[in-house]
Amino acid sequence: MSAPAAGPADATSAPLAILCGAGAFPLEVAADAAHAGRAPFLIGVVGSSDASIEAYPHVWVRMGEIGKLFAALKERGIVEMAMVGAMTRPELSDLRIDWGAVRRAAEIAQIFRRGDNGLLVGLAAIFEREGVRIVGAHDIAPRLVAPAGRLGARSLAAEDEADIAFGAGLLRALSDFDAGQCAVVAAGRVLAIEAAEGTDAMLARVADMRRSGRLRHKGPAGVLVKAPKRGQDLRLDMPAIGPDTVSGAAKAQLRGLALAAGAVLMVERDRCVREADAAGLFLAGFST
Amino acid sequence: MSAPAAGPADATSAPLAILCGAGAFPLEVAADAAHAGRAPFLIGVVGSSDASIEAYPHVWVRMGEIGKLFAALKERGIVEMAMVGAMTRPELSDLRIDWGAVRRAAEIAQIFRRGDNGLLVGLAAIFEREGVRIVGAHDIAPRLVAPAGRLGARSLAAEDEADIAFGAGLLRALSDFDAGQCAVVAAGRVLAIEAAEGTDAMLARVADMRRSGRLRHKGPAGVLVKAPKRGQDLRLDMPAIGPDTVSGAAKAQLRGLALAAGAVLMVERDRCVREADAAGLFLAGFST
Repeated sequence: MSAPAAGPADATSAPLAILCGAGAFPLEVAADAAHAGRAPFLIGVVGSSDASIEAYPHVWVRMGEIGKLFAALKERGIVEMAMVGAMTRPELSDLRIDWGAVRRAAEIAQIFRRGDNGLLVGLAAIFEREGVRIVGAHDIAPRLVAPAGRLGARSLAAEDEADIAFGAGLLRALSDFDAGQCAVVAAGRVLAIEAAEGTDAMLARVADMRRSGRLRHKGPAGVLVKAPKRGQDLRLDMPAIGPDTVSGAAKAQLRGLALAAGAVLMVERDRCVREADAAGLFLAGFST
Repeated sequence: MSAPAAGPADATSAPLAILCGAGAFPLEVAADAAHAGRAPFLIGVVGSSDASIEAYPHVWVRMGEIGKLFAALKERGIVEMAMVGAMTRPELSDLRIDWGAVRRAAEIAQIFRRGDNGLLVGLAAIFEREGVRIVGAHDIAPRLVAPAGRLGARSLAAEDEADIAFGAGLLRALSDFDAGQCAVVAAGRVLAIEAAEGTDAMLARVADMRRSGRLRHKGPAGVLVKAPKRGQDLRLDMPAIGPDTVSGAAKAQLRGLALAAGAVLMVERDRCVREADAAGLFLAGFST
């Protein structure tokens, strides 16, 4: 894989840093950003990011090497950064503290006491104070965000709409506890709620319950409902699905997937739609 | 195992039916009821109840054989029944419909459209209309209900108290969705929320996340918080823990278990306390 050519040298061609979580999605965002004329500079986190990020100009840092990270951005005059992809929440004691982190130690220790969202908000505040504006993946790659309405071939039944509304209400209620971006609802019954395990593990659990007979539906049942927490800063942490989510939903014998429109990323969107169609699942964005 | 002798023939010696869910807990309740002078009559549900219920006077019914069940109760002049132990929610189409059920078919079909709690409330209404009063396991075996305060040797830290309050609030919020009797909270972060999978599976998931490194706590972390849903009719469906819950919490490397006082059953209570102590877990009832 060779690095895409940098875009034209106008206002939108300002270089853009992408702090890369796990998987290939940061690369998709980088490709979109490059396509739009931005020059991506990828920040790999040792132990989290995929080696493929080296296809772009990049730097590797360890968790906690905030000083090294800021130095790399300043050296290149980069003042915008997106945080893309899932990152394992580190323990404070795992951080590789450098002088940049030592200077902010009290603040870092304090934000580590918060939930995931609080932690991200705190990290963003540190970046912004250094003059690095945080932008969302959806700002720089809007084609990857779920639109409102049906996306695939399969249409929704009235029962599905009811389950989506119910699930969206459930996720809203969980927001106050900095939890719950995803749930599975079948005919008004909550089958699974995601917390720290992640969406894929939650879907695998529903599949297990179908297999074991703990859930005894006949045929497809249930809707995956995914939405950000209320007040969640989408620049920092945007819910996402990808082809694995679609195949997980198929294995769980769901009826479909419903995503909060404008607020959920679709990794490999075209493949998601194709695979949902092939599995007979609906795929839709819902307005909140 | 021989049947315990019937108690003295006074007002409290009226026979008592126990509709037996899975496991040995219905037997524990029956033993307590017999000890208090009630004559237990056990109703086994084919495919759900343990064969050991045959130690007591009993009848076996299939799911849906409501006519047979009422006939058995009437024949013995039984007007009180407790529903004890977990029962797999059947699909409507799995029911073995007898004439007693046919007479109530419209009502049964309607209550099957509800959540678990709604289904139980509907079933209880059918029983009560036939003159069978539903009583709770806690009414007839109060020694099995979690009291307020510390139960084992290990005491609670301020952080544990905070997590319990947070978890209790989370479960309250979930109540509106007929979901969530149990969650695991660690330092203000929600690690797991139980839905259809049950408490044991939820604890196994936390243990998995510790093993896989998805959760990277050092040492014990997190509190299991268990409480009924707001407005849950405890006569019909009371949350319960047992020695398996305690060993599950130990494998998940939790700090302890917190149970809503007066509202959570403890199967094999003494063994629960012993095993919590042995594993260094706290075990406590909290006031709601």
